[in-house]
Amino acid sequence: MTASELAETTLFVCVTCRAQVTEGVSPDQPRAGARLLAAIETMPAEHRAGIAVVGVECLSNCNRACTVAVTAPGKWTYVLGALDPDLHVQDVLAFAQLHQRHDAGLPAWRERPEYIRKNTVARVPALSMPR
Amino acid sequence: MTASELAETTLFVCVTCRAQVTEGVSPDQPRAGARLLAAIETMPAEHRAGIAVVGVECLSNCNRACTVAVTAPGKWTYVLGALDPDLHVQDVLAFAQLHQRHDAGLPAWRERPEYIRKNTVARVPALSMPR
Repeated sequence: MTASELAETTLFVCVTCRAQVTEGVSPDQPRAGARLLAAIETMPAEHRAGIAVVGVECLSNCNRACTVAVTAPGKWTYVLGALDPDLHVQDVLAFAQLHQRHDAGLPAWRERPEYIRKNTVARVPALSMPR
Repeated sequence: MTASELAETTLFVCVTCRAQVTEGVSPDQPRAGARLLAAIETMPAEHRAGIAVVGVECLSNCNRACTVAVTAPGKWTYVLGALDPDLHVQDVLAFAQLHQRHDAGLPAWRERPEYIRKNTVARVPALSMPR
């Protein structure tokens, strides 16, 4: 099976995450997680090719918000944190594309965006993965 | 489908985690993660009923070691961190049992061991979950 035959990659985006710095943020404003989801969804389609973007209520990484998770059937799941909707959308999508292109969902370390390397919260093997 | 008909729950244990406090720890000693795995595997069988315990090299949560992940087909995945092999084995297995008994892998908050509530690193929905 080649990477292109694998099922679609899913990018879960926590929409309940609050910004790390809340000073000056009105309670009426959308939460940082919701802004991150909107920013990802408005990126050009070629940046999101093969990636299903799905909003989720709480990925339980509140201390290192904003948070996303990248996963696909039979691949490792990665949780990425400390994301700013104004700064890290391209890094998140670049990592998701690398994950999508790797058969096991294990992008080469040197190819990952530096910010993602430093703010990977956790990874979990697929249940179906040979161990 | 009832919880008892669901496929087995998997408890991944990071065996490369080092102890948070390394003072006085000889480099020859097994790593804290390997000790956590051994401590879980030597618990009475009834504490591990329905749970496959699997050692994994690095769950990428090195800053909050020791780390485990609890998952099952069609359920949420939970990553738990800051675990001490001498203190938290029973809490980990109690959480895994609660996860195993809940159809969606979402144990009630009040039932979770307090230490697990405070040291949940992240959770990720199942790909097959209705959203």
